[in-house]
Amino acid sequence: MSLVGGAPDFDTGFRDRLADLLAWRRDVRRFRTDTLPPGALERLIGLACLAPSVGLSQPWRFVVVDNVSRRNAVRENFRACNADALAAYHGERAQRYATLKLAGLDEAPAHVAVFADHGTEQGYGAGRRTMPETADYSVVAAIHTLWLAARAEDIGIGWVSILDPTAINDALDVPKDWSFIAYLCIGYPQEGSSVPELERVGWEYRRTPEEFILRR
Amino acid sequence: MSLVGGAPDFDTGFRDRLADLLAWRRDVRRFRTDTLPPGALERLIGLACLAPSVGLSQPWRFVVVDNVSRRNAVRENFRACNADALAAYHGERAQRYATLKLAGLDEAPAHVAVFADHGTEQGYGAGRRTMPETADYSVVAAIHTLWLAARAEDIGIGWVSILDPTAINDALDVPKDWSFIAYLCIGYPQEGSSVPELERVGWEYRRTPEEFILRR
Repeated sequence: MSLVGGAPDFDTGFRDRLADLLAWRRDVRRFRTDTLPPGALERLIGLACLAPSVGLSQPWRFVVVDNVSRRNAVRENFRACNADALAAYHGERAQRYATLKLAGLDEAPAHVAVFADHGTEQGYGAGRRTMPETADYSVVAAIHTLWLAARAEDIGIGWVSILDPTAINDALDVPKDWSFIAYLCIGYPQEGSSVPELERVGWEYRRTPEEFILRR
Repeated sequence: MSLVGGAPDFDTGFRDRLADLLAWRRDVRRFRTDTLPPGALERLIGLACLAPSVGLSQPWRFVVVDNVSRRNAVRENFRACNADALAAYHGERAQRYATLKLAGLDEAPAHVAVFADHGTEQGYGAGRRTMPETADYSVVAAIHTLWLAARAEDIGIGWVSILDPTAINDALDVPKDWSFIAYLCIGYPQEGSSVPELERVGWEYRRTPEEFILRR
Protein backbone atom coordinates (compact mmCIF):
# COMPACT_ATOMS: atom_id res chain seq x y z
CA MET A 1 0.00 0.00 0.00
CA SER A 2 1.29 3.45 -0.77
CA LEU A 3 2.26 5.68 2.09
CA VAL A 4 0.42 8.80 1.02
CA GLY A 5 -1.72 9.62 -1.97
CA GLY A 6 -3.60 7.21 -4.17
CA ALA A 7 -6.36 7.16 -1.58
CA PRO A 8 -9.46 5.30 -2.72
CA ASP A 9 -12.39 7.41 -3.85
CA PHE A 10 -15.47 5.75 -2.40
CA ASP A 11 -18.53 6.24 -4.55
CA THR A 12 -22.25 6.41 -3.86
CA GLY A 13 -22.67 2.75 -4.71
CA PHE A 14 -20.15 1.74 -2.07
CA ARG A 15 -21.67 4.03 0.52
CA ASP A 16 -25.11 2.55 -0.08
CA ARG A 17 -23.73 -0.96 0.37
CA LEU A 18 -21.89 0.12 3.50
CA ALA A 19 -25.17 1.43 4.89
CA ASP A 20 -26.70 -1.97 4.05
CA LEU A 21 -23.87 -3.68 5.90
CA LEU A 22 -24.41 -1.51 8.97
CA ALA A 23 -28.15 -2.12 8.84
CA TRP A 24 -27.89 -5.89 8.36
CA ARG A 25 -25.03 -6.60 10.75
CA ARG A 26 -26.65 -8.51 13.59
CA ASP A 27 -25.81 -9.93 16.96
CA VAL A 28 -26.37 -13.54 15.96
CA ARG A 29 -27.47 -16.19 18.44
CA ARG A 30 -28.89 -18.76 16.00
CA PHE A 31 -26.13 -20.39 14.00
CA ARG A 32 -25.88 -23.21 11.53
CA THR A 33 -23.28 -25.72 12.65
CA ASP A 34 -21.22 -25.90 9.45
CA THR A 35 -17.64 -24.82 9.96
CA LEU A 36 -15.90 -21.76 8.57
CA PRO A 37 -13.58 -22.16 5.57
CA PRO A 38 -9.94 -22.78 6.54
CA GLY A 39 -8.13 -19.51 7.14
CA ALA A 40 -11.29 -17.39 7.26
CA LEU A 41 -10.97 -16.59 10.95
CA GLU A 42 -7.33 -15.58 10.65
CA ARG A 43 -8.08 -13.40 7.63
CA LEU A 44 -10.91 -11.64 9.45
CA ILE A 45 -8.74 -11.08 12.51
CA GLY A 46 -6.14 -9.62 10.15
CA LEU A 47 -8.69 -7.02 9.04
CA ALA A 48 -9.67 -6.40 12.68
CA CYS A 49 -6.07 -5.44 13.37
CA LEU A 50 -6.55 -2.43 11.06
CA ALA A 51 -8.80 -0.91 13.74
CA PRO A 52 -7.77 2.31 15.46
CA SER A 53 -5.90 1.91 18.73
CA VAL A 54 -4.82 4.44 21.29
CA GLY A 55 -1.21 5.45 20.67
CA LEU A 56 -1.00 2.64 18.09
CA SER A 57 -0.83 0.25 21.04
CA GLN A 58 -2.82 -2.58 19.36
CA PRO A 59 -3.76 -4.00 22.77
CA TRP A 60 -6.12 -6.62 21.28
CA ARG A 61 -5.49 -10.28 22.00
CA PHE A 62 -7.63 -12.84 20.15
CA VAL A 63 -7.89 -16.23 21.79
CA VAL A 64 -9.32 -18.89 19.49
CA VAL A 65 -11.02 -21.41 21.77
CA ASP A 66 -11.18 -24.96 20.38
CA ASN A 67 -10.58 -27.07 23.46
CA VAL A 68 -13.80 -28.79 24.49
CA SER A 69 -13.18 -28.55 28.23
CA ARG A 70 -12.50 -24.83 28.02
CA ARG A 71 -15.60 -24.30 25.89
CA ASN A 72 -17.60 -26.23 28.47
CA ALA A 73 -16.25 -24.03 31.26
CA VAL A 74 -17.33 -20.91 29.37
CA ARG A 75 -20.76 -22.42 28.69
CA GLU A 76 -21.25 -23.31 32.35
CA ASN A 77 -20.25 -19.82 33.41
CA PHE A 78 -22.78 -18.36 30.96
CA ARG A 79 -25.52 -20.60 32.37
CA ALA A 80 -24.77 -19.55 35.93
CA CYS A 81 -24.56 -15.82 35.11
CA ASN A 82 -27.72 -15.98 33.03
CA ALA A 83 -29.60 -17.73 35.84
CA ASP A 84 -28.50 -14.91 38.18
CA ALA A 85 -29.65 -12.34 35.64
CA LEU A 86 -33.04 -14.02 35.31
CA ALA A 87 -33.44 -14.04 39.10
CA ALA A 88 -33.03 -10.27 39.14
CA TYR A 89 -36.10 -9.71 36.95
CA HIS A 90 -39.66 -9.97 38.23
CA GLY A 91 -43.11 -10.64 36.87
CA GLU A 92 -43.75 -10.37 33.17
CA ARG A 93 -40.22 -9.08 32.45
CA ALA A 94 -38.77 -12.22 34.05
CA GLN A 95 -41.06 -14.41 31.96
CA ARG A 96 -39.94 -12.62 28.83
CA TYR A 97 -36.26 -12.78 29.79
CA ALA A 98 -36.55 -16.54 30.28
CA THR A 99 -37.60 -16.94 26.65
CA LEU A 100 -34.69 -14.96 25.18
CA LYS A 101 -31.97 -16.82 23.35
CA LEU A 102 -28.91 -14.81 24.32
CA ALA A 103 -26.01 -16.89 23.04
CA GLY A 104 -25.15 -19.42 20.38
CA LEU A 105 -22.48 -21.18 22.42
CA ASP A 106 -23.81 -24.64 21.62
CA GLU A 107 -24.06 -24.25 17.86
CA ALA A 108 -21.45 -21.72 16.70
CA PRO A 109 -18.50 -23.53 15.12
CA ALA A 110 -15.92 -20.91 16.13
CA HIS A 111 -15.37 -19.30 19.53
CA VAL A 112 -13.03 -16.35 20.03
CA ALA A 113 -12.40 -14.62 23.34
CA VAL A 114 -11.01 -11.11 23.07
CA PHE A 115 -8.90 -9.38 25.71
CA ALA A 116 -7.13 -6.05 26.20
CA ASP A 117 -3.53 -6.38 27.30
CA HIS A 118 -3.19 -3.67 29.92
CA GLY A 119 0.47 -4.48 30.35
CA THR A 120 1.54 -3.81 26.77
CA GLU A 121 4.27 -1.23 26.28
CA GLN A 122 3.45 -0.87 22.60
CA GLY A 123 2.53 2.76 21.94
CA TYR A 124 4.57 3.98 24.92
CA GLY A 125 1.41 4.94 26.76
CA ALA A 126 0.53 7.73 24.34
CA GLY A 127 -3.05 8.94 24.63
CA ARG A 128 -4.06 6.86 27.61
CA ARG A 129 -2.64 8.69 30.60
CA THR A 130 -5.90 10.40 31.58
CA MET A 131 -8.12 7.69 30.08
CA PRO A 132 -6.51 4.26 30.48
CA GLU A 133 -9.85 2.74 29.48
CA THR A 134 -9.04 3.72 25.88
CA ALA A 135 -7.01 0.49 25.68
CA ASP A 136 -10.27 -1.41 26.18
CA TYR A 137 -12.00 0.87 23.69
CA SER A 138 -9.36 0.06 21.07
CA VAL A 139 -10.16 -3.61 21.48
CA VAL A 140 -13.86 -2.89 21.03
CA ALA A 141 -13.07 -1.11 17.75
CA ALA A 142 -11.20 -4.21 16.60
CA ILE A 143 -14.14 -6.43 17.56
CA HIS A 144 -16.53 -4.20 15.65
CA THR A 145 -14.22 -4.29 12.64
CA LEU A 146 -14.18 -8.08 12.81
CA TRP A 147 -17.95 -8.07 13.02
CA LEU A 148 -18.45 -5.97 9.89
CA ALA A 149 -15.80 -7.80 7.87
CA ALA A 150 -17.39 -11.12 8.84
CA ARG A 151 -20.90 -9.98 7.92
CA ALA A 152 -19.65 -8.95 4.47
CA GLU A 153 -18.82 -12.66 4.01
CA ASP A 154 -22.20 -13.76 5.37
CA ILE A 155 -20.52 -14.86 8.59
CA GLY A 156 -22.34 -13.85 11.74
CA ILE A 157 -21.01 -12.89 15.14
CA GLY A 158 -22.72 -12.93 18.53
CA TRP A 159 -21.12 -11.05 21.42
CA VAL A 160 -21.65 -12.85 24.73
CA SER A 161 -21.30 -10.57 27.77
CA ILE A 162 -23.28 -12.60 30.31
CA LEU A 163 -20.07 -13.99 31.77
CA ASP A 164 -17.86 -13.40 34.79
CA PRO A 165 -14.61 -11.90 33.46
CA THR A 166 -12.41 -13.46 36.14
CA ALA A 167 -13.83 -16.91 35.42
CA ILE A 168 -13.10 -16.49 31.72
CA ASN A 169 -9.48 -15.46 32.30
CA ASP A 170 -9.10 -18.56 34.47
CA ALA A 171 -10.88 -20.90 32.05
CA LEU A 172 -8.67 -19.76 29.18
CA ASP A 173 -5.44 -19.49 31.17
CA VAL A 174 -4.49 -16.00 30.03
CA PRO A 175 -2.50 -13.40 32.02
CA LYS A 176 -4.26 -11.61 34.85
CA ASP A 177 -3.50 -8.19 33.40
CA TRP A 178 -5.46 -9.03 30.29
CA SER A 179 -8.89 -7.47 30.63
CA PHE A 180 -11.69 -9.64 29.25
CA ILE A 181 -13.69 -7.66 26.71
CA ALA A 182 -15.88 -10.11 24.76
CA TYR A 183 -16.59 -13.72 24.00
CA LEU A 184 -17.56 -14.10 20.36
CA CYS A 185 -19.59 -16.89 18.81
CA ILE A 186 -18.82 -17.01 15.10
CA GLY A 187 -20.49 -18.96 12.30
CA TYR A 188 -23.10 -18.83 9.59
CA PRO A 189 -26.41 -17.36 10.78
CA GLN A 190 -29.62 -19.30 10.28
CA GLU A 191 -31.24 -16.19 8.80
CA GLY A 192 -30.61 -12.55 7.98
CA SER A 193 -32.51 -9.57 9.30
CA SER A 194 -32.21 -5.81 9.42
CA VAL A 195 -33.95 -5.72 12.80
CA PRO A 196 -32.23 -6.64 16.07
CA GLU A 197 -33.45 -9.89 17.57
CA LEU A 198 -34.34 -8.16 20.85
CA GLU A 199 -36.65 -5.90 18.86
CA ARG A 200 -38.17 -8.76 16.90
CA VAL A 201 -39.10 -10.58 20.11
CA GLY A 202 -40.47 -7.46 21.77
CA TRP A 203 -37.85 -6.93 24.49
CA GLU A 204 -36.81 -3.44 23.40
CA TYR A 205 -36.98 -1.23 20.32
CA ARG A 206 -34.64 1.17 18.60
CA ARG A 207 -35.14 4.86 19.13
CA THR A 208 -34.63 7.43 16.37
CA PRO A 209 -31.18 9.04 16.14
CA GLU A 210 -32.59 12.48 16.93
CA GLU A 211 -33.14 11.33 20.51
CA PHE A 212 -29.41 10.89 20.97
CA ILE A 213 -28.17 14.25 19.65
CA LEU A 214 -27.67 17.29 21.86
CA ARG A 215 -26.24 20.73 21.11
CA ARG A 216 -23.87 22.67 23.30
CA MET B 1 -36.55 -2.48 5.30
CA SER B 2 -37.94 -5.95 5.42
CA LEU B 3 -38.04 -7.76 8.72
CA VAL B 4 -36.47 -11.02 7.59
CA GLY B 5 -35.18 -12.25 4.27
CA GLY B 6 -34.06 -10.19 1.31
CA ALA B 7 -30.69 -9.85 2.98
CA PRO B 8 -28.07 -8.18 0.82
CA ASP B 9 -25.53 -10.45 -0.83
CA PHE B 10 -22.21 -8.69 -0.52
CA ASP B 11 -19.85 -9.48 -3.37
CA THR B 12 -16.09 -9.63 -3.73
CA GLY B 13 -15.99 -6.12 -5.11
CA PHE B 14 -17.69 -4.75 -2.02
CA ARG B 15 -15.47 -6.74 0.32
CA ASP B 16 -12.36 -5.39 -1.40
CA ARG B 17 -13.62 -1.83 -1.03
CA LEU B 18 -14.50 -2.47 2.61
CA ALA B 19 -10.93 -3.67 3.17
CA ASP B 20 -9.74 -0.43 1.52
CA LEU B 21 -11.97 1.55 3.86
CA LEU B 22 -10.57 -0.24 6.91
CA ALA B 23 -7.01 0.29 5.66
CA TRP B 24 -7.48 3.97 4.80
CA ARG B 25 -9.54 5.04 7.80
CA ARG B 26 -7.23 7.23 9.81
CA ASP B 27 -7.12 9.08 13.07
CA VAL B 28 -6.94 12.52 11.53
CA ARG B 29 -5.23 15.44 13.23
CA ARG B 30 -4.59 17.66 10.20
CA PHE B 31 -7.84 19.08 8.88
CA ARG B 32 -8.82 21.57 6.25
CA THR B 33 -11.04 24.23 7.76
CA ASP B 34 -13.91 24.05 5.26
CA THR B 35 -17.18 23.12 6.87
CA LEU B 36 -19.19 19.95 6.42
CA PRO B 37 -22.27 20.01 4.17
CA PRO B 38 -25.50 20.82 6.03
CA GLY B 39 -27.01 17.69 7.50
CA ALA B 40 -23.90 15.54 7.00
CA LEU B 41 -23.16 15.21 10.69
CA GLU B 42 -26.71 14.23 11.56
CA ARG B 43 -26.81 11.69 8.73
CA LEU B 44 -23.55 10.11 9.88
CA ILE B 45 -24.78 9.98 13.49
CA GLY B 46 -27.90 8.28 12.16
CA LEU B 47 -25.72 5.51 10.71
CA ALA B 48 -23.76 5.32 13.96
CA CYS B 49 -27.01 4.53 15.75
CA LEU B 50 -27.13 1.24 13.79
CA ALA B 51 -24.20 0.03 15.90
CA PRO B 52 -24.64 -2.94 18.21
CA SER B 53 -25.54 -2.10 21.81
CA VAL B 54 -25.79 -4.28 24.87
CA GLY B 55 -29.43 -5.28 25.42
CA LEU B 56 -30.41 -2.82 22.67
CA SER B 57 -29.77 -0.08 25.23
CA GLN B 58 -28.39 2.47 22.73
CA PRO B 59 -26.56 4.30 25.52
CA TRP B 60 -24.76 6.66 23.12
CA ARG B 61 -25.22 10.41 23.51
CA PHE B 62 -23.74 12.68 20.86
CA VAL B 63 -23.07 16.24 21.94
CA VAL B 64 -22.41 18.56 19.02
CA VAL B 65 -20.18 21.32 20.40
CA ASP B 66 -20.47 24.66 18.59
CA ASN B 67 -20.22 27.15 21.45
CA VAL B 68 -16.87 28.94 21.30
CA SER B 69 -16.42 29.15 25.07
CA ARG B 70 -17.06 25.45 25.50
CA ARG B 71 -14.68 24.61 22.68
CA ASN B 72 -12.05 26.80 24.34
CA ALA B 73 -12.54 24.98 27.64
CA VAL B 74 -11.97 21.65 25.93
CA ARG B 75 -8.90 22.99 24.14
CA GLU B 76 -7.44 24.33 27.37
CA ASN B 77 -8.04 20.99 29.07
CA PHE B 78 -6.26 19.21 26.24
CA ARG B 79 -3.28 21.56 26.52
CA ALA B 80 -2.98 20.96 30.26
CA CYS B 81 -3.35 17.17 29.99
CA ASN B 82 -0.90 17.01 27.11
CA ALA B 83 1.66 19.06 29.04
CA ASP B 84 1.32 16.57 31.92
CA ALA B 85 1.75 13.69 29.49
CA LEU B 86 4.89 15.25 28.01
CA ALA B 87 6.33 15.73 31.50
CA ALA B 88 6.02 11.99 32.12
CA TYR B 89 8.37 11.13 29.24
CA HIS B 90 12.12 11.48 29.42
CA GLY B 91 15.04 11.90 27.08
CA GLU B 92 14.61 11.20 23.42
CA ARG B 93 11.05 9.87 23.88
CA ALA B 94 10.05 13.21 25.42
CA GLN B 95 11.62 15.09 22.53
CA ARG B 96 9.69 12.95 20.08
CA TYR B 97 6.44 13.29 22.01
CA ALA B 98 6.78 17.06 21.94
CA THR B 99 6.77 17.01 18.14
CA LEU B 100 3.60 14.91 17.79
CA LYS B 101 0.44 16.58 16.58
CA LEU B 102 -2.18 14.77 18.61
CA ALA B 103 -5.37 16.72 17.95
CA GLY B 104 -6.99 18.93 15.35
CA LEU B 105 -9.01 20.96 17.83
CA ASP B 106 -8.01 24.28 16.26
CA GLU B 107 -8.83 23.42 12.67
CA ALA B 108 -11.60 20.81 12.60
CA PRO B 109 -14.91 22.46 11.71
CA ALA B 110 -17.06 20.03 13.73
CA HIS B 111 -16.60 18.87 17.30
CA VAL B 112 -18.65 16.05 18.80
CA ALA B 113 -18.28 14.74 22.35
CA VAL B 114 -19.64 11.26 22.90
CA PHE B 115 -20.90 9.90 26.20
CA ALA B 116 -22.40 6.69 27.59
CA ASP B 117 -25.57 7.23 29.59
CA HIS B 118 -25.10 4.86 32.53
CA GLY B 119 -28.50 5.77 33.85
CA THR B 120 -30.53 4.69 30.83
CA GLU B 121 -33.24 2.14 31.44
CA GLN B 122 -33.49 1.29 27.77
CA GLY B 123 -32.72 -2.41 27.34
CA TYR B 124 -33.82 -3.22 30.90
CA GLY B 125 -30.24 -4.00 31.87
CA ALA B 126 -30.05 -7.08 29.66
CA GLY B 127 -26.50 -8.31 29.09
CA ARG B 128 -24.74 -5.90 31.39
CA ARG B 129 -25.21 -7.33 34.86
CA THR B 130 -21.78 -8.97 35.09
CA MET B 131 -20.12 -6.51 32.71
CA PRO B 132 -21.61 -3.01 33.11
CA GLU B 133 -18.71 -1.69 31.03
CA THR B 134 -20.47 -3.07 27.96
CA ALA B 135 -22.53 0.14 27.93
CA ASP B 136 -19.30 2.03 27.27
CA TYR B 137 -18.30 -0.56 24.68
CA SER B 138 -21.58 -0.04 22.83
CA VAL B 139 -20.77 3.64 22.54
CA VAL B 140 -17.33 2.80 21.16
CA ALA B 141 -18.97 0.65 18.49
CA ALA B 142 -21.14 3.63 17.54
CA ILE B 143 -18.10 5.88 17.35
CA HIS B 144 -16.30 3.39 15.14
CA THR B 145 -19.35 3.15 12.91
CA LEU B 146 -19.42 6.93 12.62
CA TRP B 147 -15.73 6.89 11.75
CA LEU B 148 -16.10 4.40 8.90
CA ALA B 149 -19.24 6.02 7.50
CA ALA B 150 -17.49 9.39 7.57
CA ARG B 151 -14.38 8.10 5.84
CA ALA B 152 -16.53 6.68 3.05
CA GLU B 153 -17.51 10.31 2.38
CA ASP B 154 -13.90 11.52 2.58
CA ILE B 155 -14.64 13.03 5.98
CA GLY B 156 -11.99 12.39 8.61
CA ILE B 157 -12.29 11.88 12.34
CA GLY B 158 -9.72 12.30 15.07
CA TRP B 159 -10.40 10.80 18.52
CA VAL B 160 -9.00 12.99 21.28
CA SER B 161 -8.43 11.11 24.56
CA ILE B 162 -5.86 13.40 26.19
CA LEU B 163 -8.56 15.02 28.29
CA ASP B 164 -9.83 14.84 31.85
CA PRO B 165 -13.29 13.25 31.68
CA THR B 166 -14.68 15.16 34.66
CA ALA B 167 -13.58 18.47 33.15
CA ILE B 168 -15.31 17.61 29.88
CA ASN B 169 -18.58 16.71 31.58
CA ASP B 170 -18.41 20.07 33.36
CA ALA B 171 -17.42 22.07 30.28
CA LEU B 172 -20.32 20.63 28.29
CA ASP B 173 -22.86 20.66 31.12
CA VAL B 174 -24.04 17.08 30.76
CA PRO B 175 -25.35 14.77 33.51
CA LYS B 176 -22.83 13.31 35.95
CA ASP B 177 -23.91 9.74 35.19
CA TRP B 178 -22.90 10.18 31.59
CA SER B 179 -19.49 8.62 31.14
CA PHE B 180 -17.23 10.54 28.79
CA ILE B 181 -15.98 8.24 26.04
CA ALA B 182 -14.48 10.38 23.28
CA TYR B 183 -14.06 13.86 21.90
CA LEU B 184 -14.16 13.78 18.12
CA CYS B 185 -12.71 16.32 15.73
CA ILE B 186 -14.47 16.00 12.39
CA GLY B 187 -13.72 17.55 9.02
CA TYR B 188 -11.93 17.05 5.72
CA PRO B 189 -8.41 15.68 6.11
CA GLN B 190 -5.50 17.48 4.48
CA GLU B 191 -4.32 14.18 3.01
CA GLY B 192 -5.08 10.48 2.86
CA SER B 193 -2.85 7.63 3.93
CA SER B 194 -3.03 3.94 4.60
CA VAL B 195 -0.40 4.23 7.35
CA PRO B 196 -1.16 5.57 10.84
CA GLU B 197 0.38 8.98 11.51
CA LEU B 198 2.17 7.63 14.60
CA GLU B 199 3.90 5.10 12.34
CA ARG B 200 4.74 7.69 9.69
CA VAL B 201 6.50 9.87 12.25
CA GLY B 202 8.33 6.93 13.83
CA TRP B 203 6.57 6.81 17.23
CA GLU B 204 5.34 3.22 16.92
CA TYR B 205 4.69 0.66 14.20
CA ARG B 206 2.01 -1.90 13.53
CA ARG B 207 2.70 -5.51 14.34
CA THR B 208 1.49 -8.40 12.17
CA PRO B 209 -1.87 -9.95 13.12
CA GLU B 210 -0.23 -13.31 13.92
CA GLU B 211 1.28 -11.72 17.01
CA PHE B 212 -2.20 -11.17 18.44
CA ILE B 213 -3.69 -14.63 17.95
CA LEU B 214 -3.50 -17.38 20.56
CA ARG B 215 -5.02 -20.86 20.68
CA ARG B 216 -6.63 -22.47 23.66
